[in-house]
This record gives sequence, structure tokens and C-alpha cells, in this order.
Amino acid sequence: MKYDIIVIGGGPGGHEAALAAAQSGLKTAMVSDMALGGRATWGSLVPSKVWLEEAHKVLLTGHENFDLGRLRGKIKAQGQRIAQNMRIRLESAGVAIYEGKAELASAECLSVVLPTGTSIELETRFVVLATGSEPIFTPEMKPMPPRIIAPRLAGAMEALPSRLLMVGGGVTGVEYASAFAAMGVEVILLQRGPSLLPRIDAELVEAFERWLFATLRIKVVKNAATVSLKVEGETVVAHTASGQMYTGSHGFIAAGRRADTTFWKGEPHLLALTPEGAVKINDFCQTSIPGIYAVGDVTGAPMTVNHAQMQARVAVSHLLYGTEKALRRKPTVEAVYTPLPIGQLGDTTASDEAYFVVKPYEALLKAQIAEDITGMLKVKMDKQTGQILGASAFGSQAIEILGLIQIAMHANIPWEALRAYPLPHPTYSELLSQL
Amino acid sequence: MKYDIIVIGGGPGGHEAALAAAQSGLKTAMVSDMALGGRATWGSLVPSKVWLEEAHKVLLTGHENFDLGRLRGKIKAQGQRIAQNMRIRLESAGVAIYEGKAELASAECLSVVLPTGTSIELETRFVVLATGSEPIFTPEMKPMPPRIIAPRLAGAMEALPSRLLMVGGGVTGVEYASAFAAMGVEVILLQRGPSLLPRIDAELVEAFERWLFATLRIKVVKNAATVSLKVEGETVVAHTASGQMYTGSHGFIAAGRRADTTFWKGEPHLLALTPEGAVKINDFCQTSIPGIYAVGDVTGAPMTVNHAQMQARVAVSHLLYGTEKALRRKPTVEAVYTPLPIGQLGDTTASDEAYFVVKPYEALLKAQIAEDITGMLKVKMDKQTGQILGASAFGSQAIEILGLIQIAMHANIPWEALRAYPLPHPTYSELLSQL
Repeated sequence: MKYDIIVIGGGPGGHEAALAAAQSGLKTAMVSDMALGGRATWGSLVPSKVWLEEAHKVLLTGHENFDLGRLRGKIKAQGQRIAQNMRIRLESAGVAIYEGKAELASAECLSVVLPTGTSIELETRFVVLATGSEPIFTPEMKPMPPRIIAPRLAGAMEALPSRLLMVGGGVTGVEYASAFAAMGVEVILLQRGPSLLPRIDAELVEAFERWLFATLRIKVVKNAATVSLKVEGETVVAHTASGQMYTGSHGFIAAGRRADTTFWKGEPHLLALTPEGAVKINDFCQTSIPGIYAVGDVTGAPMTVNHAQMQARVAVSHLLYGTEKALRRKPTVEAVYTPLPIGQLGDTTASDEAYFVVKPYEALLKAQIAEDITGMLKVKMDKQTGQILGASAFGSQAIEILGLIQIAMHANIPWEALRAYPLPHPTYSELLSQL
Repeated sequence: MKYDIIVIGGGPGGHEAALAAAQSGLKTAMVSDMALGGRATWGSLVPSKVWLEEAHKVLLTGHENFDLGRLRGKIKAQGQRIAQNMRIRLESAGVAIYEGKAELASAECLSVVLPTGTSIELETRFVVLATGSEPIFTPEMKPMPPRIIAPRLAGAMEALPSRLLMVGGGVTGVEYASAFAAMGVEVILLQRGPSLLPRIDAELVEAFERWLFATLRIKVVKNAATVSLKVEGETVVAHTASGQMYTGSHGFIAAGRRADTTFWKGEPHLLALTPEGAVKINDFCQTSIPGIYAVGDVTGAPMTVNHAQMQARVAVSHLLYGTEKALRRKPTVEAVYTPLPIGQLGDTTASDEAYFVVKPYEALLKAQIAEDITGMLKVKMDKQTGQILGASAFGSQAIEILGLIQIAMHANIPWEALRAYPLPHPTYSELLSQL
């Protein structure tokens, strides 16, 4: 079979790329070695968000009757719903779906190992790699359910832990820590480096960490690089590089993810990778091999669905229209969906050419009325042009506010113009429009 | 004393106008005959939002211990906080504040009747009318606390009603009806016309009304024009124009508001009014009298704070920079802050030159996970240009989503461009960016 474009991977990035291509009239195929929806749907994003939603409910209603069976059922039902919707959309758009493991040795040579073990060859003009990422485990630190778990195994626990050792202070570690803590679990979070969420503005992360302790009683141990996590009888024991030991009833591994490049069967030097092992791409999501694009987690951080979707649209527009007319990559929001969320967008590092505006939630009518004044928004602008370069936010509706700033950034609306549009009153988004 | 500009009214519109003028270097005064913050702060907007917030909490937590005293204290504390903040901001910007009743007979002749009864004359180049609106009562239908109340008297009740007759199905009536119903009160809503919220898209209002009944058990009686509301012993009785009678333990009057033009002491024909009695203005908020502008509720519907703020900025930019350079009036969001909110923005009426896109919440991952799939977004676009003309939304975060569309409309971002910016995942705002 000969296609215009073959997308490898059935997660959100692959789905977006295949759909955009097919809707533009390209003869499109998708190869996926797992259920449609990919790891985001079946192992990471969707399960974590169902856990978080359940935890928020428990936090608000205060009731202790947490039902793990119901939660597992909900996670499965959501996965099935998403996979089914993806299949309907892809098939309606005319995308051919192959179930099997794609193997690639060059742009021209793509084979699919079917579940039966036989291989078929497919021909194509373009390839989009969307194979995603997988959690990082080591022999000394790997899941051992039911005591040592990881995102995709959270539902395999038999009951809530009494005391949980969370290994990792990135987005996944912080989100699951907040979910378990909201359900009444004592949580010790072991973070390798000197701060949580290293990709987010340090001032906001500091406020966030104070809130994590004040509200959820999460104890954060910094500069604690866990080197082993083991079950010893009824206990889970973590050892750190500096010789400290921590014990809990359960352990949770959220020590990062790495790009899945197991599809590559060609010469290693042909497909350029980043130092972290992700597929290297340019501004149009082109890899080092002409005709091969890559989108989503396989291209490295930020590993978010919206970033993957953005890349998918950029890649497809580039292969259709070329560099002149293609969409450009623009910043997307990285969000942490804790009960009070925190996130960032674009470039938020200090610089002489930029200035910052800081808006505390305290000044907002909506926050005052809701008795929900913890939080702040920090926006970075170019001193010369007034254009928004990036933003960080912590507090209620912080992610929606960042979405609003994203729209302004993508449309090149300068900060002073954005501020002049009076937003609905009283809302959290008025942080932007207050005089 | 001689000023560049005198603002009459100390509510949110007057505050915004005075602040913008003073910050632009104009010698500015404000005249207010009530505490700073105006009726919005002391009688309508702020009290209603505190009631709604309390009601949402009761709805979520299910606890029955509703504390009216605490609510009254919170309303008062918010009013004081807002008034104090306004005073600090205005005084820091150099605005002179006069407490008294302004009387105006021409652009050149403005006097202030002080609380002592004496009058002083003020000279000015420009006047901004921001005198707001007041509830409409009639001799047959006026507040009689504690049994018959109105927004500013809601806190005067001695206990929650057992059965409340709500007169009026506009924003205020619907919001308070939802608040009382959420607290367990049986509510009968009497609406004059054939539908609730006549300014919002009929398809969404229909879905909204079904939800009001299914979730809050609010009974809506349409085409029921209440002509009298009276206390008879322990009962409140409403009579309608068509001869129906309804009884409850309490009544609530939310039968609309009218512009407050009591400041006008000149010839009636000099200051042009609309058929509804509001001050007539053009696109730059100029009244029929040169040098006199009007902003906010005194100019008629929509009577919202954000609309008043927009008008204040337009008026001040016009008197500073003239027609060529002034800000233009743009649509703002009209919001109803029920537990599931509903609102609208811009022009949403059907037309041959326009097309609509309808997005159900059901299709959203966030809504699915939150088990919160009731709602829809409806966006109206120009067939020729693809520009967004208006939108209506009903459901969780509907008002924030409309805020986002407002930004796009103000920046002339066409719908197809707006859709191409992948928003954070999973959020409600993704209703916009889903393929």
C-alpha cells in the first residue's frame, strides 16, 4: 500500500496529525502498537486526571468513602470512550489504521510487525513520528505492585496507602502527591534537585510549596536523589544518593519520562537525537531525515498533549504548504492540575530586555468572595515592543488564565492592549484587565 | 474649584473613569452621594455574588448549617474593603472626592448639595455621568422586609424562606433564585415574558431552564406578569395580569432596573434619553450635550460592571484624544453566575450572512472526567470574513470561555485562527481548540 503520510503512534499527537492530514486530502495511515489513545489515555494523562478529579471531590465534600473500584471503572470507561471516539473520527476522515509495531530504517522503508508476528511493508512520502514517551525505571527502582506503583499502575493498589513515598517532584509526582494527600494519605515527596517543578518560575513554585504543606501537609524533601526503592515486608524503603533512608507503606515512581525511539531500526547516527535521547527537530518539526517529522513527547519536553497537538498542526501544515506558509511553533501552556493549579507559558526567565508585572489574587473581587486569595500571576513583557514573552500563574483558574494569555501571545496582542479589554466581572481572569 | 473632568457617581464605572482620567494627567473630581463602590458594591452586584458563592458551597458540601449572620458580615466586609481600596486608588491618583448629591443643568453648571444641605458650585471642562441604576418598584410591588425583599435587602431576612416567590426572570432574578434553591428553598419564578433571560440565545436558555428544574427544582412560570405582591399574615401573595395567584412564605422583587437620572435639573429636552429612560449616547459615550459623557447603567442595558468599565475607558480616551484615536466600544460579556453559569457576548441573532458552530460539553475530556457534561458553546461567525460576531455559552467555566472569545473578537482573530491555538489540556476552554 502507498500512502502520502504515515503517522506512527496512536496517542493525542498522532491522532491530531493523522486527522489534520486526512482532512487536508492526504492519503493517510496510522500505525499503533497499542489501543488508540496511546499511553496518554491508558497510562498517564487520563488516569492521573481522573485521580485528581476524585481527590478534589473528596477534598471539597470531606467524605471519607473513597471507592477505588469506582475510580478504576471510571478510568477504564474514559479510555474506552476516547479510543472509540478517535477511531470514529479517524475512520470517518479516511485514515487507514494498522495495529502493530512500526519499524523504520529510512524514510522509504517502513514495516509493520503485526500481532500475528508477520511483517508488512508500507510505502509513503512522509512519516510523522508520534511514538510518545515511557516512564523511566531502573533495576533498583521499578514498579512492584501493589506496594510500589507508578502512574499506569495506580489503580492496581488494593487500598489507599497510609504513608506514601513519592519519588519525583515534576508534574506527575506533584499531581499524584496532591491527589493522595487530598484523600488523607500522608505523603513524603522526594525531589532530586533543589526545587519542585524546575520548569516553572521559582517565586511561584515557592508559594506553591508553602501551600502544598499548609493545605495538604505534603512534606517535600529536596536534594534527595532516590537511588533505590524496595519492598521490605510491609514497608517500602527509599535510599537516597546522600545516604538518607525514608520508609512508607507504599512507594510511587514518578522519576521522569523518556522518548520512545524503539521504532528506529536504521543506523543510529542517521536519526539525530538530543542529549536526553529525544528526536531532534527544527521549528517545523522536521527531523534530521528529509520527509520524516516528529511531534509530541518523542521530541522531548514539554511533554503535554497541547504541545503535541500544536506540533502536529505545524508538521502537517509544513509538509502541505512548505516553510513560507506553514504554521509556526508557538508557546503552549504547561499545567499542573493540583487543587490549586500552577503552570507556565513561554519564556519566563529574567532578562535585561524584559519587565515583569505581578498580580496577586488578593486584589480580585472573585477571589475575595470565594475566600480563595492564595495565588499570583506573573507576566513577562519585552521592554521595547510591549509584547508578552511568557507568564506563570498559581491559583484558582490559573490554567484558564494562561490559556487566555496564550491566545494574546499567538495573536501578538501587546500587554497594554490586552489589559484594555474589560473581562467579565467578577472572574479570576480579571487579573488581566484590572487597572 | 475648576477641574478638567468631573465624574458623577462612585460605582465601578465612575471609579474606572476617574482613575483613567487622573492617571492621564487630567485634574479630576468625583462626586458621589453614597459610600464609594456605589449601588453595585452596596446593593446589587457584591451582595448577590456573596450569596451565590455561599449557595455554591452549600450545594457542594451538602451541609445544612447555613449562617445568615455570617453572610451578612461577609457582604459588609467586602463592601468596606472595596470602598477603602477605591478611596486609596483614587486619592493616590490625585482625584478629589466630593460627598454629596450632584445637580446638573448644563455642561457648565454643576453644583453639589453637601450632606449639610449647603450647595457648592464646581467648574469643569468635561462631565462623565456614572450615576448607575436603581431597582424598579411600584406601589403594588415594593419591598416589605422581612417578608418581601429585593437584592439590597436580601440580608434583612430573619431566616431562609420555606417557599419563595421570585418576581423576574432576568439576570438578578435567576441568580438569586438559584442561590435560594441551592440552599434548599422551594422557589417559584414568575417571569413576565415567554422565556427567561431574553438577551441570551433561546436554544441555550432552553437547556439552562431544563437544568434549573432538574438540578435545583426551580419552577419557572412564564407569561406571568406580576402586578402585585403583598404580605397577608404569614403569607406572601402574588397576582398576575392574567388573574393567576401564587403564594409563598416570602417574595423577592427582581423586576428590572432603571437608569438614575435624578441628577438632571436642566430642561428635560436638552439631555436626550432612550425610550427606556436611559441617557442616550453615541459610540464614544457622548451624550446629546457637548462635553458631557455617560457610562455604565445610566446608559441602559447591558447593566454590567465590565460594560461600564469598557465605556469609561472609551469616554476618557475620546475626551483626551478625539474621535480618530479613541478606543472603540466593543462587545463585553453578559454573565449569569448560577452554579452552572450562562452568558453571552456580542451579536448572537440568526442571519443569512452568518454561520454558527455549536460545541457540546459532552465531547470534552475535562467535562467527562468531572462528570459535568451539561452545557454547550455556540459561536456566530461572518460567512465572508470568518470574524467572530458573538457567542453564547452555558456550562462550567462558560464565562471564562466567553472572556477568551472576547479577547479574540477585540483583536480581530478569526475563528479558524483561534481554533488553531491548542489550549491547555484537559480544560473547558478546549471547547475552542478541538479539531
